[in-house]
Amino acid sequence: MELVFLGTSSGVPTRGRSLSAVALRRHKAKTWLLVDCGEGTQHRLLRAPLSLHWLQAVCITHLHGDHCYGLPGLLASAGLNGRTAPLTIIGPAGLQAWVEHTAAVSQLQLNYALRFVSVEELAAGAAPLALEQFEVSATALSHRLPSFGYAFTETGLPSRLDTARLRADGVPAGPLWGRLHRGEVITLDDGRIIKGRDYQLAPPTPRKVVIGGDNDTPALLNEAVKGASVLVHEATYTREVAARVGPEPQHSSAAAVAAFAAKAGVPNLVLTHFSPRYRHGGPGLTVADLELEARAHYAGRLFMAEDLALYRLNGAGVLSRI
Amino acid sequence: MELVFLGTSSGVPTRGRSLSAVALRRHKAKTWLLVDCGEGTQHRLLRAPLSLHWLQAVCITHLHGDHCYGLPGLLASAGLNGRTAPLTIIGPAGLQAWVEHTAAVSQLQLNYALRFVSVEELAAGAAPLALEQFEVSATALSHRLPSFGYAFTETGLPSRLDTARLRADGVPAGPLWGRLHRGEVITLDDGRIIKGRDYQLAPPTPRKVVIGGDNDTPALLNEAVKGASVLVHEATYTREVAARVGPEPQHSSAAAVAAFAAKAGVPNLVLTHFSPRYRHGGPGLTVADLELEARAHYAGRLFMAEDLALYRLNGAGVLSRI
Repeated sequence: MELVFLGTSSGVPTRGRSLSAVALRRHKAKTWLLVDCGEGTQHRLLRAPLSLHWLQAVCITHLHGDHCYGLPGLLASAGLNGRTAPLTIIGPAGLQAWVEHTAAVSQLQLNYALRFVSVEELAAGAAPLALEQFEVSATALSHRLPSFGYAFTETGLPSRLDTARLRADGVPAGPLWGRLHRGEVITLDDGRIIKGRDYQLAPPTPRKVVIGGDNDTPALLNEAVKGASVLVHEATYTREVAARVGPEPQHSSAAAVAAFAAKAGVPNLVLTHFSPRYRHGGPGLTVADLELEARAHYAGRLFMAEDLALYRLNGAGVLSRI
Repeated sequence: MELVFLGTSSGVPTRGRSLSAVALRRHKAKTWLLVDCGEGTQHRLLRAPLSLHWLQAVCITHLHGDHCYGLPGLLASAGLNGRTAPLTIIGPAGLQAWVEHTAAVSQLQLNYALRFVSVEELAAGAAPLALEQFEVSATALSHRLPSFGYAFTETGLPSRLDTARLRADGVPAGPLWGRLHRGEVITLDDGRIIKGRDYQLAPPTPRKVVIGGDNDTPALLNEAVKGASVLVHEATYTREVAARVGPEPQHSSAAAVAAFAAKAGVPNLVLTHFSPRYRHGGPGLTVADLELEARAHYAGRLFMAEDLALYRLNGAGVLSRI
C-alpha cells in the first residue's frame, strides 16, 4: 500500500504545505482513495502520480474548511477531465447538502454520479463499506465538530500456490501449476489425481491503514488500530504549545499521539496536520520539534508527513519513504 | 495602479496557472481589491506582496467554480490571521447564501463582518460603490450564467500646487507653500494677500481599469471602457479553437477581444483566463498563439497575464510589467 500526502498543514496553507489531503492506493494500482480534500488538493494532484480519472472514493473526516473546501473544485475538474465513472463520497452529515448547494449555485453539471455514504452510520457499526480493493470502516473521534477516523483494510488478496509442496509431490512445473492455482482437479501422467485446492496457501494477512481526522483523544482509535500496520494522525502542536493554545485545543500533541501509538503497538506512525507555526527549518519552531517530541514516546517507524512525499508499506508491514 | 494576477487559467488549474483571481491596488498602497477568487487564490497570495489583512473588497464576476470556489478558504484564512476589519463582497445573487451555507456547515466563525453588495444592482445603474481609493461600477456581460465586468476608477486623488505660478508671483518656497496647498489665505511680507485656492492645479484625471468576467460579447463593455486605461479580459481560445469547441463557446477568442479593444481605443489590454490547452512553451498550442492572434487586431500595449506577475500603470496611462 502507498500513501501520498497532498497537504499537511493545519488551518491555513504555508508555502510548503497545502491543506489536509492524503491519497491511499495499493502498490502499482491505478485506482486510489482520497482522505480529506482541503483547498488546493487538485493543484497538488498536478504534481502527483495520481489521476482524477481513477479516484474511487473521497473520505472526509470532518467539515472544517481546511479538510473539505477543495472538494467542489476537485469534482468539477474530474468532470472537465472527462470522468464518467461514479464516485463514492463518504462524509459527515451536511456534506451532501453543501456539495449539492455548491454545484447548484455554480451550475456544476457532472457527467458522473456521486454516491454519498454516511460516515456516522459506518462509525455506528454498519458493515464496512466494500470498495474495489479496500474495505472501509470508521470511528468517531473528539473534535470541535463531528470528526472521524477511517480504517482501510485491503481486500481481494490473491491466493498463492504452495510451490514447495508441489515440488515435494513431484508435480512438474509448467501449465499444470496454473490450472492447479485456478483450483482444477488434475490427473497426472502417473495416474495420480490431485486437487488444486490442496495446494493453495492462505492469502497473506490483509494489511490495514488507519487515517484519523482532527482529534484530541487518540485512544478513541484503540479498536481501529488493532492489527493496523500504519496510523496516520494529526499532531498539530507540541505539548507545550497545545497547553498554551487553550485548555481545550481539540487537537493532539505529537507526544499524545506517539504515546498512544506506542501503547497500541502500531509499528508505523505518520504524523501530519502541522500548525503553520512549525517551519521546515531555520530559527523558531520547526517540524523537527514535533518529531523530537514524538520520538521520545515512540520507538517504532516514525514519519513526519511532507507534501507530495510517497510512503510505501511493504509486504512485511514496513513503511518507507520512497 | 497595479495589477497582480493570482490565477490565469480557465476551468482547471495547470502547473503554472492557478484559477481566476486578480488583485488591484493603488501604487504603494497597502489596501487592495480582489476580482474573482478561484480555488488556490489564498495559496498564491503566500507568494504575492499582498496581505489578507489589507483586503478591502472581493468582486466576484460570476459563480462558476473556477471564479469563486476559493472564497470560503480565503475568508477563513483572513480570520485565522487575525483580521477584524469588515470586508465588502460584491457578487451575483446566490453568492451570499452559498458563503453563509459554507460557513455554517464548516462552523466557520469570522471575527470580522462581511458586507455583501449586489452586482446586479450595480450593473442596473445604482450609484458606483465608493471604496477607500476606488469607486466601483459594473456591467452585465454574456455567459452561461450571469456574469459581470467591473470598472474601478481611482478616487481621492490629491490636488497639486501650481508651483510654477507661485514662483512667477514671487511667493518664496517653504512652509508657506504647504499652507497655500491646504487652502489658507496668506498675507505676504510685502503686504499682498494671496489665496491658496488660486494656486491649486486640477487633480490628475482619475484612471480607470476595467476587469471583465467570462464573456462572449466584448462589445457589452463599450460604455465601461470609455476613458479606461486598461482592459483585462478573458481570451480563453483562439478563434479557430473557439469555433471548434461549439457554436456557443460562451467565451471570447483572443481575436474578438483584441478587435474590440482596438475599436474602443483602449490603450492597454491584458488577456487572461487561458484554456489549459495553451501551454507556455513547447510543441502544441501555446499562449503565444493567443498573443499572435490578438496582436493581429490590436496595436496598443498588449500583455498575456502570468500568474504572480505585477503590472503597473503609470501616471501617463502606460501599463508595464514590473
